[in-house]
Amino acid sequence: MRRSERLIRVTQSLLEQPNQPVSLSDLAERLGAAKSSLSEDVALIRSVFHEDHSGVVQSIAGAAGGVKFQVRVPPARREAFENLLVARLSDPTRILPGGFLYMSDVLGDPEVLDIAGRLFAEQFAARDVQAVVTVETKGIPLAVATARYLRVPVAVVRRDHRVTEGASVSIHYISGSERRIQTMSMSKRAMPHGARALVVDDFMKAGATARGVMNLLAEFDAQVAGVAVFVATQEPAVKLVPEYVSLFNLGPLREGQKVILTPALPPAEP
Amino acid sequence: MRRSERLIRVTQSLLEQPNQPVSLSDLAERLGAAKSSLSEDVALIRSVFHEDHSGVVQSIAGAAGGVKFQVRVPPARREAFENLLVARLSDPTRILPGGFLYMSDVLGDPEVLDIAGRLFAEQFAARDVQAVVTVETKGIPLAVATARYLRVPVAVVRRDHRVTEGASVSIHYISGSERRIQTMSMSKRAMPHGARALVVDDFMKAGATARGVMNLLAEFDAQVAGVAVFVATQEPAVKLVPEYVSLFNLGPLREGQKVILTPALPPAEP
Repeated sequence: MRRSERLIRVTQSLLEQPNQPVSLSDLAERLGAAKSSLSEDVALIRSVFHEDHSGVVQSIAGAAGGVKFQVRVPPARREAFENLLVARLSDPTRILPGGFLYMSDVLGDPEVLDIAGRLFAEQFAARDVQAVVTVETKGIPLAVATARYLRVPVAVVRRDHRVTEGASVSIHYISGSERRIQTMSMSKRAMPHGARALVVDDFMKAGATARGVMNLLAEFDAQVAGVAVFVATQEPAVKLVPEYVSLFNLGPLREGQKVILTPALPPAEP
Repeated sequence: MRRSERLIRVTQSLLEQPNQPVSLSDLAERLGAAKSSLSEDVALIRSVFHEDHSGVVQSIAGAAGGVKFQVRVPPARREAFENLLVARLSDPTRILPGGFLYMSDVLGDPEVLDIAGRLFAEQFAARDVQAVVTVETKGIPLAVATARYLRVPVAVVRRDHRVTEGASVSIHYISGSERRIQTMSMSKRAMPHGARALVVDDFMKAGATARGVMNLLAEFDAQVAGVAVFVATQEPAVKLVPEYVSLFNLGPLREGQKVILTPALPPAEP
């Protein structure tokens, strides 16, 4: 195989399996190439991705020797994404009764999901996340997009207890918006005991739902690697979770007035 | 930019934007390359993807001239996926009361979602799908994975009517398993009128839910591009939808006995 073809195949292998160790020995065998040639290819791919900050290619020590691709978001692309979303979500006709913002169309947009998933994966790349957890329904697409780039399973917390989930663990919590006792449950098989879980959701007001998920995760002896939401409201400023990141912060909503939305994701950890 | 670097960038651009036209003029400007060089790069990438059936690079006629990458699944990879899933889902402890099969862990597995999404995208590549529609909750991850490769929005049908969805269209249908009247609704903003929609779900027994979604889609003047499910039961053989594809067919479930599951997806249309 010529070098040009090999570069295409190696690039493809890395991009198709983000955050997953790829063995250079396996790749060498599959492509009929010397490991030394592959190492040169990987070094070039690494420098190309590094140049525009679109990804990191890590070397993995060990007997087999391998590499792992982690997604990054080029700063210009992040800025364009943030500006586009602010413009799109600021439309006053999105304001719904009760202080909600209509976002379902945006949360189903493949481009938005892809970049949001990359941004969250980048944000938590160093936290050794082993599962992404979300609550039905609107957070699921975002959780799936994030889990794709972290290459970890998604577990979905249900608001009821369905027969199709099998044996489940349930907790009660008090919802922030409706001030009443609610239930959430997760199948016992949905997540291994003791996993490091990233909580992903679409919207956070007081943080009662995220707090509930954290309490539920404690029943699975899971550790919380982080909490990430698409939009968090400015008020209340103090949430029921100790720490979280949001892509956007949302000011108070008043019918007929412009929605105040500001990008809020901190720079990714190095 | 050297040819080797250019090949990495072009491969990356195509893989990161499946089913999306990429303008060669834009690419030429961004990479500081001649369009003729890029055409050669694209031709090589096309032949490499064609060789192992991992993707198709289509040329798009027109003033700007462009290309579009569509995912395919190499036959060996499809077979390995099918065998693995049959083994994993045949476990008798997955049988739940009422003739259900526990699949939530599998439907949250990033590798399963990725390959299932590719297989559905490949299956409907020629149908000009403009949106993927699913019903909450368990079908959502599969719908998101499919929509990623078709690069179209996902619209989620709700079983209740939530304030956060804004103005919605609702219909009633009779559920196959519980034989009672149920409601499903979709936000009026979730999908443009007249779109060609692919219906994706995790499980089909009689097909009442899929039929309900089709009736709901009719209210949006949408056309049904197809119906795709992860698992369909063998019985009843005649479903309430005229046409569908499933990745797997499921035999009758009896507690304590082995689950009979067979791969069922037809070969993709050429």
